[in-house]
Order: sequence, then structure tokens, then C-alpha cells
Amino acid sequence: MKNRAVVIGLGLIGGSLALELKKRFDWHVIGVDLNDVHAQKALDLGIIDEIGDISSVKKAETVVIAVPVNYASQLTSQVLDLANEDALVFDVGSTKENICKNVVKHSKRVNFVAVHPIAGTEFSGPEAAIYNLFDGKVNIICDRELSSNESIEKTLAIFDALNMRTIFMGSVEHDKHIAYVSHLSHISSFMLGKTVLEIEKDEKNIFDMAGSGFESTVRLAKSSPKMWSPIFVENKKNVLTSLDEFIKNMNQFRDFIANEDTNELERAMKETNYIREILKGIKK
Amino acid sequence: MKNRAVVIGLGLIGGSLALELKKRFDWHVIGVDLNDVHAQKALDLGIIDEIGDISSVKKAETVVIAVPVNYASQLTSQVLDLANEDALVFDVGSTKENICKNVVKHSKRVNFVAVHPIAGTEFSGPEAAIYNLFDGKVNIICDRELSSNESIEKTLAIFDALNMRTIFMGSVEHDKHIAYVSHLSHISSFMLGKTVLEIEKDEKNIFDMAGSGFESTVRLAKSSPKMWSPIFVENKKNVLTSLDEFIKNMNQFRDFIANEDTNELERAMKETNYIREILKGIKK
Repeated sequence: MKNRAVVIGLGLIGGSLALELKKRFDWHVIGVDLNDVHAQKALDLGIIDEIGDISSVKKAETVVIAVPVNYASQLTSQVLDLANEDALVFDVGSTKENICKNVVKHSKRVNFVAVHPIAGTEFSGPEAAIYNLFDGKVNIICDRELSSNESIEKTLAIFDALNMRTIFMGSVEHDKHIAYVSHLSHISSFMLGKTVLEIEKDEKNIFDMAGSGFESTVRLAKSSPKMWSPIFVENKKNVLTSLDEFIKNMNQFRDFIANEDTNELERAMKETNYIREILKGIKK
Repeated sequence: MKNRAVVIGLGLIGGSLALELKKRFDWHVIGVDLNDVHAQKALDLGIIDEIGDISSVKKAETVVIAVPVNYASQLTSQVLDLANEDALVFDVGSTKENICKNVVKHSKRVNFVAVHPIAGTEFSGPEAAIYNLFDGKVNIICDRELSSNESIEKTLAIFDALNMRTIFMGSVEHDKHIAYVSHLSHISSFMLGKTVLEIEKDEKNIFDMAGSGFESTVRLAKSSPKMWSPIFVENKKNVLTSLDEFIKNMNQFRDFIANEDTNELERAMKETNYIREILKGIKK
């Protein structure tokens, strides 16, 4: 009999994972989504084999939790309650501290693995699911010492097959760093888009004058509000710290411009040019 | 005899234009740069035919001014003083109000055309010069009524051949809009890069955790400080207005997160998602 997986949440990440488990692994994939239209769409697109509900968890070897992070903590407890003694349960959300805290005393904590595959596009919903979304990207597993070796091995078997490079990290540390390298980028992109849209009532000017630089900087402002709003709130402490630093730097740069202090302007930008070396590293 | 062009400033834009004039138009291109190493490099790379100096302007039919915008105004007056009665002189800087103001009473004002080809990469110097940099992009000519029809026609002949779509605009209006759709993007990108570099002393974490979203948002932070510092100062009035709006929006969004106001967070992001439609327009 085929391996059975339940994927809860059939958006970009859950949908893409369901697709891989079904096509690449040849598993029987049961999809669960609060939104019936999404579930039906996932079935129609061949991303899942059947539509299930939360009780489907009982008959699965693997359960993937890919819902907005504000639902994920509570849902994970509920899934662990229902799951088989030897089932693997993992979530794929962008914040990890709260979810790990929430299940730390669960009798089936060892069955759970806190996973964050760093992959995505600015699109959302089951129709955004794509093959090879994870290929060549980095995957993070948090608090590995709280999962059984068997759970970790099963998880690695999946993400290794997707050609991801998995690294290990504490969940608290994860949330701190991800605020800077991911969450803050999304906020700056959204606010840039908002500022330009507000001023440019006559959007024709944006069409005509915006170069590829604007497009690149504002790309993340296309992202899903329903996904990102809970992430910012879940990771509030770290996001606010990073945002305050960003605003402080922005105000300082503003003063350099107001004072026409070209020395300080050049110095700030020159130091930041070091990002070139880091981006080269990412591309490797 | 070949048409002779003098290109002053052999960086990314000047170098790329020199390359097009030499190879595509088969003109004799004389390069001028305060930096002897840049001038020699441009010659070695075959971007120019010979190295000249400011007096070379006297023997040219066309003069291109592609220097940082803080030098461009004064240099343009000096070039117009030296230029032949029927020469075309145009600059390609990112700010247009000051340069247009500065030459408005010059006896050869009609020989001058204020041009802003919206093209570029985050690289700089003559070795960043590339073919087809301008292909398919938008070109802006400001205050056309102050240039002679002949000067406008000669300018269009060049940029049409490079497959650019030229639009016309007042120099004051240009500087206002470009602050929002270009200059602000560069500042937000630089400040994002600065903030992340400051906190992530151990850069390994950036390598590992940064996805393509960060890379896209921070790309412009690789840009040249020597080019951008003068632009921000030249366009100070408009840049500060746009920056203040951006900071205001950022502070408001910060408060939404602090108050866990998911309704307002979602609303702000959803409205900004409209940028999708605008970016589709740019791609056409």
C-alpha cells in the first residue's frame, strides 16, 4: 500500500509540497483546507489525491502543517493528539519559537519536527503551487534535540530528496535572524509600494518612469496579506526590534541628505556595498 | 569623415553609450574622464577610439555628459561655451531640474537636450559598460521646448536607434516623480542592507537564511555611492518628501504590529498588492 500523507493548508508551500509527495514520492496525498474552493482546486489541479478533514490524520504516516502561523500552534497540538504513535508531523511556517513552545510538553513531541523551508514566490493559493520550488534552497530544522532521531531521519529523507540543504538551529535564534533577513524585507517592500502608490495617483507616471530597480525592490509587496499579517504578529518582538533599527537608520540617512553631508552618505553606502560579497555567497 | 562624439564620464551609462556610438553608429568616439585609469580602461576595452580632454569638445558634432549630477550642471555650461554652433550637447543624469535651471540663459541653450535614459545595473565604472543596456527601456527628455527642433531630432535619432521609447516631461515634474520611483527605492535598499549587516555580525546566518526575497529587495544596495550621494543631494527637496512619507508609513505599520492589529495590517498590505497590476504594465 502507498504511504499516506495528509497536507493541511493547500497554499503555495503546502500545495507545492503535496505536489512533490504525490508525484515525486508516489505517496497517496490527502489534502485538508478550511477553504473548500482551495481544496477542490487542489484536487482539480492534481496536487492531491483526495479531500479529507482533520480526522484523516489518524490514517496517515506523515502529516504536513502548512497553515498561517497564527493557526499552526494550536493545530499542531490537535494533530499530535490524533496522530498515530509512529507518525511524523511537521510544520513549515516562517516562525518557530511559539509553535515549539506550545508543543514542548506534548506526549508526542518526539513525533514533531519544526521545519522552515526557505522557499517561496510572491504568489499564493493552490494555483501558485509549483514543482521544484524547493530545489537547491536552504531548509531549517529547529530544536532538533526535541524530535526523535527517527522523526528527523524521515524529515531529512523528504527534504534531501527535494534537493534542499538542511541546517539546524534553535527556534529562538531562528526567529531573531529571520526577522532581519526575511520579515523586514517584506515590510520595507510593502511600505515602499504603499508610499509610491499614495503619491502617484496618476499611475501612468509609475509605468513610464519606473526602472527594473523599483520592480526588484517592490516585488515582495505582491505577497499575500493573509499569510504575512500573522507572521509579523507572531514574531512581533523580533520584527519590532529590526523595524526600529531600520527606521533609525532611515532617519539618520535622512539627516545626512538634509545636511548635504556627502561624506557620511558615501560612507554609509560604501559600508553597505559589502552586501555584494554576501549575495555572491547566497548564489553559490 | 566619421561623425565625432565626445563622451565625458566613462562609467556605466557613459561607457555603454560610447560603446553604442562607436560600434552601432560607427562614430569616432573620444572619451574624457577625470580618472585616468577609467579612461585607459575604456580605451583598452574598445569602448572609445581615443582619450581626449575638455578641449576635444571643439571638434565634436555630439557631446554626451555622463558625470555625477553634482558636476553635470557646471560642466554643461563649460561644454556649451566650447561647443560648435551646430553641435548637440546632452546629459544623461538622474536629476534634471538644477541642470536645466543652470543653463536656461546660455546663448547655446537650444543646442542642449536634458535626457534621462531609465536604464542601469547596480555595477559601475567602464568595465560595467554593456551593449543593449538601453534596449526596450524608457527615455525621458525634459523641457523639450527649450531645445531646438534640430537638437531634439538628433537626440531622438540616437535613442530611437537604441530601441528606447522616449517620453517628454517638465524637468521639475521629472525630479518629483523620479524621487518616488527610483531614488526612494535605492535608499530603502541601502538602509535594509545596512540594518541587516549591523545586526548580523556573523554573516554566515545571512548566507544560510536569506531567500530570494531578501536578495531582490537589497539588490540596489550594491549601487555606486559616488553616483548616488550627489543624486540624493541634488534632488534633496523631493527625496526628503518621499522619505518622510516612507518613514511615516513605516511608523504606522510598526504601530499596527505592536497593537497586533491584523485588520489594519491586512488592509495596508492588500491595498499595496495593487502594485501587481502596475508591475504588469511595466513589463509590457
